[in-house]
Amino acid sequence: GLGNPVEKVQEQVGKVQDAFAEEKKERESILGSSTSKPKFKLGYDWVDKEAQVLIARAYNRHKALADKSQSYPPALGVEDLEKIVPPNLHRKPEGLLDHIALGTMRLLRVFTNAFFGDKYLHHATLLETVAAVPGIIASASRHLRSLRRMKRDHSWIGTLQEESENERMHLLIWLAINQPNMFERMLVIFAQGAYFSFYSLSYLFSPRFAHRLVGYLEEEAVIAYTEFLHSIDAGKMPNIPAPEIAIEYYRLAPDAKLRDVVLHVRADEIMHQMVNHHLSDKYKHKDLDSKPTFVGQDYREGQW
Amino acid sequence: GLGNPVEKVQEQVGKVQDAFAEEKKERESILGSSTSKPKFKLGYDWVDKEAQVLIARAYNRHKALADKSQSYPPALGVEDLEKIVPPNLHRKPEGLLDHIALGTMRLLRVFTNAFFGDKYLHHATLLETVAAVPGIIASASRHLRSLRRMKRDHSWIGTLQEESENERMHLLIWLAINQPNMFERMLVIFAQGAYFSFYSLSYLFSPRFAHRLVGYLEEEAVIAYTEFLHSIDAGKMPNIPAPEIAIEYYRLAPDAKLRDVVLHVRADEIMHQMVNHHLSDKYKHKDLDSKPTFVGQDYREGQW
Ligand SMILES: [Fe+2]
Ligand SMILES: [Fe+2]
Ligand SMILES: [Fe+2]
Ligand SMILES: [Fe+2]
Repeated sequence: GLGNPVEKVQEQVGKVQDAFAEEKKERESILGSSTSKPKFKLGYDWVDKEAQVLIARAYNRHKALADKSQSYPPALGVEDLEKIVPPNLHRKPEGLLDHIALGTMRLLRVFTNAFFGDKYLHHATLLETVAAVPGIIASASRHLRSLRRMKRDHSWIGTLQEESENERMHLLIWLAINQPNMFERMLVIFAQGAYFSFYSLSYLFSPRFAHRLVGYLEEEAVIAYTEFLHSIDAGKMPNIPAPEIAIEYYRLAPDAKLRDVVLHVRADEIMHQMVNHHLSDKYKHKDLDSKPTFVGQDYREGQW
Repeated sequence: GLGNPVEKVQEQVGKVQDAFAEEKKERESILGSSTSKPKFKLGYDWVDKEAQVLIARAYNRHKALADKSQSYPPALGVEDLEKIVPPNLHRKPEGLLDHIALGTMRLLRVFTNAFFGDKYLHHATLLETVAAVPGIIASASRHLRSLRRMKRDHSWIGTLQEESENERMHLLIWLAINQPNMFERMLVIFAQGAYFSFYSLSYLFSPRFAHRLVGYLEEEAVIAYTEFLHSIDAGKMPNIPAPEIAIEYYRLAPDAKLRDVVLHVRADEIMHQMVNHHLSDKYKHKDLDSKPTFVGQDYREGQW
């Protein structure tokens, strides 16, 4: 009769659903619930709320670029962008790994400062060629983890790919007004090989350390871009018109200047700093199967 | 007067445009033109036009997922989805590397068929854990290339990340109705290690070979999913309701069945096949600094 196949399908569906529910229960008993909310909610308690919203608003300026049907998020004034760097932005190290990460970056600062001096544009260009490396390694690692363990990723991959794309855009922006010389080009190739290997190994052995390292690297980037700003304000570096690619990316006014671009790039670095410290915290608390909390969460999710 | 500020802005815009054009010319004189159109346009001449449009329309079904403000692309009927596999889909090998790539995949088919037999769902699940690997390696490689050579990427990174994301979604879809056993889980971990190393090395030494290999791997995937379809049609595999995650991803009707999902997944594999053969062609012609041509290009760019 006609009823038989339908019943058969329903029975089959029932079986599949039961099997899936049972498997899920079993998995949760071993791994802990991956779909339920984490017991604690890691956030950004070392940064004040107002700064969090400004960081999120600044970062959103290029976020909607791929989505041509959406209207632009409202522009941030120069004052807002300057307010983003609050005194409590620095994340205090906790434990040995954190101290090693911070120490490494502070040491690197001595060398890069000695090497670049006040050539801020060159400093920025070369910095960005390495800054875009960790995100691509970390996102690939999360992608492979999801395949290997055969479970959901919970938005880490997209977050990290977005970071690496954003860093690569910084590079392309500086390249529009600064062409590295042959020596710098060779240095970049060498530095990529070294940093790629080092960071891949770090991520393999301790993702918690790796993300903390980027968190502190970004703190150094914020300092470098702040010095870049000061050199513009002091008239040492001419405040030339913003390159076209930056105007497009950040949706700036057509008469925007270099200073506006530096303010926006610095705001991005602060976002990376936040997110990487946060992901390191998540590794520390073994909270790997839930969505990252974003700075100024509500402003990132359509509310602007 | 009132005329002055407007003129001033116009003048400023003119200056910026001049400066940018000059900078561009200078950069091109050093690096070679990276923005000009390539001399030849590599396409998909081994596939008929109607099929190209169908492939693009099918692939678009999940493309807009991230973009919540856009309306859904129109659904494809089962007949359209079945028509997508035209007799001329196979890409004929040209040269030794192509023959090695094709031979490797044909040989692998013998082993996987012997291993899985008619367990199509298991076959599909395990296949997808490796299918999502090449895209992430290739996109990372293009990302690092852009940083290292300090020039634009021209949409390769996004194309390849989209592929790897799409493959990972296939995996998550099959996981909703099939939970691999312990042996299969161990196999997946081993296979990922082996395939990741092999594919990274292939991409390092010959991206042309690597993309051709994926082109032919995807041809095998199309064959495997076609057999999956036949087994549903023959009543050997029950045509159970589509899992929720597939309904969301492909925006299917709430009463969609397994067969619809297999048709959609197969259409995606055809897209990957096309794109990877195309990227291999681009490497063959050393056309690495222009945008990939998409199958049914117009349908991918907002026209639907
Ligand atoms: Fe940056
Ligand atoms: Fe950064
Ligand atoms: Fe797939
Ligand atoms: Fe595929």
